[in-house]
Amino acid sequence: MPRVQLTIEYDGTGLAGWQRQADVPTVQQYVEEAIGRYFDSQERIAIQCAGRTDAGVHARAQVAHADFPEMRAPHSIILGINHHLASKQIAIIDAQPVADDFNARFDATMRHYEYRIINRKAPLTIERNRAWNLTEQLDARAMHEAAQQLVGTHDFSSFRDAECQAKSPLKSIESINIMRDGDSIVTQLKAISFLHHQVRIIMGTLKNVGAGKWQSRDIKRILAAQDRTKAGETAPACGLYFMRVDY
Amino acid sequence: MPRVQLTIEYDGTGLAGWQRQADVPTVQQYVEEAIGRYFDSQERIAIQCAGRTDAGVHARAQVAHADFPEMRAPHSIILGINHHLASKQIAIIDAQPVADDFNARFDATMRHYEYRIINRKAPLTIERNRAWNLTEQLDARAMHEAAQQLVGTHDFSSFRDAECQAKSPLKSIESINIMRDGDSIVTQLKAISFLHHQVRIIMGTLKNVGAGKWQSRDIKRILAAQDRTKAGETAPACGLYFMRVDY
Repeated sequence: MPRVQLTIEYDGTGLAGWQRQADVPTVQQYVEEAIGRYFDSQERIAIQCAGRTDAGVHARAQVAHADFPEMRAPHSIILGINHHLASKQIAIIDAQPVADDFNARFDATMRHYEYRIINRKAPLTIERNRAWNLTEQLDARAMHEAAQQLVGTHDFSSFRDAECQAKSPLKSIESINIMRDGDSIVTQLKAISFLHHQVRIIMGTLKNVGAGKWQSRDIKRILAAQDRTKAGETAPACGLYFMRVDY
Repeated sequence: MPRVQLTIEYDGTGLAGWQRQADVPTVQQYVEEAIGRYFDSQERIAIQCAGRTDAGVHARAQVAHADFPEMRAPHSIILGINHHLASKQIAIIDAQPVADDFNARFDATMRHYEYRIINRKAPLTIERNRAWNLTEQLDARAMHEAAQQLVGTHDFSSFRDAECQAKSPLKSIESINIMRDGDSIVTQLKAISFLHHQVRIIMGTLKNVGAGKWQSRDIKRILAAQDRTKAGETAPACGLYFMRVDY
């Protein structure tokens, strides 16, 4: 069975995240069903992704692999699967044949996330469900400087959800860059892999830096505490975008 | 009665445009009703805008003026009116006291529009209803060059909807800039004022240039024909953004 690498974009609004669960709409279920219809297959054609996103989180270029019953031309795969995804807020944006042992999850060498804040008093309209609306004036430069405390290899127990299933809390963040453009504050984060809710807890913590409540040394202190209760809130899912995977 | 200038952002999806009409949701109606509730007023407090947008067109910074029963602090106006606009995809992003004779429509010295195309085979997810999805590969540089034929003062009869109520088809376009960034093609247009559907017919025409069907000289020919049937289709409303007004 030929292995195929799929690049998938989705608007996470209203979806219960990537992973299949009973009775709720997920990206995995919709894509697997669309592949099944495309091949008119009675058996489930399973896909595995590079990074399982939570409910409400968006993806610009999630990557997944699947073993197809037969190989078809990339443009046919894209058009055919998308036809069965119509109205689902999910689209296959690329499809490529890959080696039989390619694994979208385990072969990833870098994962890129982006977190979008819109820093203004007025509620969001065009960016509703597309960003975190924070009304208190934030200092993006201070957020960027404090974020540098998190770059490198650390025990991220303070930035990890209670339900995180990773064996180790040790992770290596390659870079965090925070830039303001008007009332938009964009944070770009790169790591080989992340813990559950790690990016969102980082953002909820950096928000307090932006608001002047915490400083760089507090980030250092929170990291050293290895205690989730010391960090900030978990920022909303709607501001988070899974941007890219390197292999 | 103190006059106030309101800056308004909206997601035009599902709205029947700016202007009040019977039995359909419009920006003007929702904002006037919200102002009325904010002042607990039995009488309609009318607003007049800088540029009436069509159904489905978005605004980053529409401007309108209104005469309020009494002056209040800008932050109170913004919060108060937005409170009554919750869930309406419309937000007041600024409010400023202005002179009694300020007119949002007639005092405008420049109007800025943006038209967004996403040029790819896959359907849109995150940008659904936020851009025109064109699957045929477009040459944005050719579109930009051909668009320069439209800059300056011309008879725009070929780029004017049959229902346009303007007395004269003469308009002056200050500038058109078209830039590609990845699969996104953004067109920025500036003019003192535009005819009905002018930007959308320009975009539907430039699309044919991008696709290689027409060239710069065809734009010149279409302009000279003064005949709507010679130009391209009217591009979808969802790609159009009213960006800014200068006074």
